[in-house]
Amino acid sequence: MQKAIFYHAGCPVCVNAEKMVLDYLDDSKVDLEIVHFEENPSRINEAEEAGVKSVPALVLNGQTYHINYGASMEDVKKD
Amino acid sequence: MQKAIFYHAGCPVCVNAEKMVLDYLDDSKVDLEIVHFEENPSRINEAEEAGVKSVPALVLNGQTYHINYGASMEDVKKD
Repeated sequence: MQKAIFYHAGCPVCVNAEKMVLDYLDDSKVDLEIVHFEENPSRINEAEEAGVKSVPALVLNGQTYHINYGASMEDVKKD
Repeated sequence: MQKAIFYHAGCPVCVNAEKMVLDYLDDSKVDLEIVHFEENPSRINEAEEAGVKSVPALVLNGQTYHINYGASMEDVKKD
């Protein structure tokens, strides 16, 4: 089982992408955690260290996949 | 079963994202087609009409998800 973390900030672009990963990622292969920065601002550092430059982003198997474009990490930190 | 199309242009960013969708999209829910523009340039118009602005991109359930950033559609057309 591969651990995956989906980072988002609650914007409409994020919510749309969250629905896609929840609906269509294979949950027999992926253990998905959703991290919302407004609820968990302490996770911002960890996300940046994983290479997250904007949200929404999916970190999976050592890779960061930025999906569309909701907000930069700088915008997230200002919120 | 939801039809999905992954568009790419063979760049390293595309190949990496292709591996992710092949490995982790739930193939019990998603019927995935891979379209490589160098092999199928006639599919470029269809992709643009679906809202694809850069590759790699995944069109799924009426939405276009741009994953990271490989090349703009203008770059794809110039190749």
